Amino acid sequence: MNETYEELRARLAEIHDLRMSRSILSWDLHTKMPPKGGEIRAEQLGTLDRLSHELFISDEIGRLLEKLRPYEEGLDRDTDEASLIRVTRRDYEKAKRVTPELRAELTRAGAMALPAWIEAREKSDFSIFLPYLKRNIELQHEYVACFEGYGSAYDVLLDDFDEGMKTTEVQEIFDALKRELIPFIAEIGERADRVDDSCMHGHFPIDAQRSFALEVLERLGFNRESWRLDPTVHPFAMSAALTDIRLTTRYDESDLNSLFAAIHEFGHGFYEAGADPALERTPLSQVNSMGLHESQSRMWENLVGRGLPFWRFFYPRLQGTFPDRFGSVELDDYYRAINKVEPSLIRIEADEATYNLHIILRFELEQEILEGDLAVEELPEAWNARMAEYLGVDVPDDAHGVLQDVHWSGGAIGYFPTYSLGNVISVQLWEHMRAENPDLYAQFEQGEFGQLAAWLRENLHRHGRKYTSKEMLERITGGPIDPGPYLRYLREKLGEIYGLPVEAGAAVFLARGNPWFPREPPPCVRLRGRWVSGAAL
Amino acid sequence: MNETYEELRARLAEIHDLRMSRSILSWDLHTKMPPKGGEIRAEQLGTLDRLSHELFISDEIGRLLEKLRPYEEGLDRDTDEASLIRVTRRDYEKAKRVTPELRAELTRAGAMALPAWIEAREKSDFSIFLPYLKRNIELQHEYVACFEGYGSAYDVLLDDFDEGMKTTEVQEIFDALKRELIPFIAEIGERADRVDDSCMHGHFPIDAQRSFALEVLERLGFNRESWRLDPTVHPFAMSAALTDIRLTTRYDESDLNSLFAAIHEFGHGFYEAGADPALERTPLSQVNSMGLHESQSRMWENLVGRGLPFWRFFYPRLQGTFPDRFGSVELDDYYRAINKVEPSLIRIEADEATYNLHIILRFELEQEILEGDLAVEELPEAWNARMAEYLGVDVPDDAHGVLQDVHWSGGAIGYFPTYSLGNVISVQLWEHMRAENPDLYAQFEQGEFGQLAAWLRENLHRHGRKYTSKEMLERITGGPIDPGPYLRYLREKLGEIYGLPVEAGAAVFLARGNPWFPREPPPCVRLRGRWVSGAAL
Repeated sequence: MNETYEELRARLAEIHDLRMSRSILSWDLHTKMPPKGGEIRAEQLGTLDRLSHELFISDEIGRLLEKLRPYEEGLDRDTDEASLIRVTRRDYEKAKRVTPELRAELTRAGAMALPAWIEAREKSDFSIFLPYLKRNIELQHEYVACFEGYGSAYDVLLDDFDEGMKTTEVQEIFDALKRELIPFIAEIGERADRVDDSCMHGHFPIDAQRSFALEVLERLGFNRESWRLDPTVHPFAMSAALTDIRLTTRYDESDLNSLFAAIHEFGHGFYEAGADPALERTPLSQVNSMGLHESQSRMWENLVGRGLPFWRFFYPRLQGTFPDRFGSVELDDYYRAINKVEPSLIRIEADEATYNLHIILRFELEQEILEGDLAVEELPEAWNARMAEYLGVDVPDDAHGVLQDVHWSGGAIGYFPTYSLGNVISVQLWEHMRAENPDLYAQFEQGEFGQLAAWLRENLHRHGRKYTSKEMLERITGGPIDPGPYLRYLREKLGEIYGLPVEAGAAVFLARGNPWFPREPPPCVRLRGRWVSGAAL
Repeated sequence: MNETYEELRARLAEIHDLRMSRSILSWDLHTKMPPKGGEIRAEQLGTLDRLSHELFISDEIGRLLEKLRPYEEGLDRDTDEASLIRVTRRDYEKAKRVTPELRAELTRAGAMALPAWIEAREKSDFSIFLPYLKRNIELQHEYVACFEGYGSAYDVLLDDFDEGMKTTEVQEIFDALKRELIPFIAEIGERADRVDDSCMHGHFPIDAQRSFALEVLERLGFNRESWRLDPTVHPFAMSAALTDIRLTTRYDESDLNSLFAAIHEFGHGFYEAGADPALERTPLSQVNSMGLHESQSRMWENLVGRGLPFWRFFYPRLQGTFPDRFGSVELDDYYRAINKVEPSLIRIEADEATYNLHIILRFELEQEILEGDLAVEELPEAWNARMAEYLGVDVPDDAHGVLQDVHWSGGAIGYFPTYSLGNVISVQLWEHMRAENPDLYAQFEQGEFGQLAAWLRENLHRHGRKYTSKEMLERITGGPIDPGPYLRYLREKLGEIYGLPVEAGAAVFLARGNPWFPREPPPCVRLRGRWVSGAAL
């Protein structure tokens, strides 16, 4: 056993413990803390952040990494040891480039911008938020200036949320999505009367929602020995250990969104639970590619949880739980209802197809602002113009437009694209998984999800953070990220529902009827990444 | 503003944040964590402990304290600044005397002894626990050897749980308790048939227990903006901030103990909530005299919550909540039922009078072991002999005898006496408070507890940890700790219930009928002090 390696591992374990402690405090803040505890909680979170950062950028970590170079070079790149050294070195080199002063200022500016954003959104007055947003953009430029060797400023920021992902690559993928989706959504709009989702509105008692959600989750892989489900305002998933996974969802008596949010968060939690136990208490135990992470939440929510095979098993149970709502609704009508496509103002309420255009709009505006092609003052107008262009909707005020998301208040530029990358990746993985498991849907119809779970664990989850999203896609699919399968999937699934022509290549997806189902999850704010502040999100 | 002082305060705030983070993780462990999270949680708690200790004993803290001597000498001793420096210096000097190796070994030995104790208790086999207990005692000797200037080894240990308290002083108090209580309890035993507590056994639905407990607590000072109440196995109170107070209680459908445990924990929580906000994020915000702390939990549980004035207000509400149990039980009979005295085997189930003898027995055995007058091997026999002598009960096995408490597994020697000191102090404070608030009971009868709360806050709570228990008693009562009032109180209250002669001095307690009521709270393990390990308690 290499003593230097063991020393590195021990130090990283300590830092990991601090980060996990921070996660628990944050989970508590969002689920259990009495309201007046917030002010001091922010101090506690700040202290944990600062200490874990100081410990990580210590000279001692640098010395250990240097000393471990020959050891690393003698190892297979895929081993736990080589991966831990490689990933740590990369994190270390990035972290060291940012001065503690700039880091503190980024945190401070984000903390100050949050209440300003909340007030601005409440009053629908962009001018209240403007100076804070300008300051955040300035600081992002300072942050970018700490790094060399990137193709563009946006590349630097994107890298924090999906290592190695390039702006030009994302641009290419998003151009393809835009090219297909804008006319496709317009076509669907002409046939809007084909789907009636009135059964999804009404009275759904919260206790019944909760017990039905738990019944579903337990079928998928949630177990009470290692998992929790709690109510919160903004659904999220958090893990404090591979055997301590916390999901949250938001209950509203007037709809069933809590169920789909819970399945979405299950996807995140199941990913984190699935890392090889040998990686526990190391940075390899938690995936930091948000694209990969979102691919898992989308997969469970949409490809599983909004598909027909899933509901062939669960729909009779849902009818039994809410007989007044669904007793006289046929499965097929229910399936169509939860698949309704309709352009709307708010990203987190958008359906599966239109959601991507919300993302593309943000991705484009972020770049234009960062490159100086758009002044921050002109953001509301540019937002509204693009909403009209892409989705054909008029934005009535900034609260329903440029002020709707929390991300920019925390200085998180470059985060949004990972949401749509997750959509794209989820279907690429799904195609491969389906090809290897031809009777998967028959299993779903029996309420069995173990084959899917095992495939994901073997091919993706157990590796934790060993590979970037690009490396992982290459390993599994043999190729790069590709929007083709995702677009085909949307056209097939929604085409069938809305009576639009389906392309020939669709056969593989329709082998057992159309299993798909769109719609974006409710607000999901992940408790990870540098942009998530301790304050209310 | 003194810059050196501000630097000390900032460093202490950071350490305090780590300690509070530890408290939150520990609260979570006992109330929310999925069972399989325990192994990693122990690591996380260990890391937080180690880091906060390392930061505290750093040379930098020593240098700041040294530099602050002239500043401190120019200040009034009662100021926040002088108190913070004084208390920190004392903690620092104690902490520096113990090597990190010994501290780690104390923690490690405690962590290893806990599962051995659990197994030994389950199998009622002392021999399983014996080697671990011997190791813990050895380590306590090593710990004691780090210190100079104490009158005895036991003084060193006692000092950790009640600063400045001496073994000889406790001995004197306990001798007085023993002298009076042994014959008094025997007298009561001859009149056992005078109290029937059958109404306290039956079916009490947990939801009703919980909502009744919350109704009571909210009258006392609990508010949902800053407090929580959760179920747990062993009731405890925890505070993460002055505005984030967590109580827990244990619900059992067959009795009402959850209510008295909740009131007991409220007493702890209310003490922690009451420190001057200027002391927040400093070590002065949390009282470390367990004698004072227990005086507050006993006061609310017994002097308030088991008194007649309290129940004159709440009993009709209790009858309304559980009409089947109490609909036909008179208030007076209910009051007698919750005051029943009966010698028993288990400390945490003991009534208010016999409880003290359980404590005295432990206090004596701990000293004999520490002084080498009793071999650890002979502990079970010595225990059983003393139980027969003091309480007249036969111990059937070690699970119901020497193995019943968790404390010694964690190496906590010197903790037990603070429980009875709390009883004694609570009545000393109560006498003074009553003299200054003559219409207090009339207020209790109206469900008003604000006058009591205000008196406690003004005289005790706001000072936080500025004063030791002896200093605090001197400030409030003008004298030392004194068992007289407590013994008078027990004789009066229980004498009236059991028809025994009441001494003349009792008049002050009986001005409005007898408000008292004995009985020890359910298991209460405080999340503080060095003996509380991260493992299940």
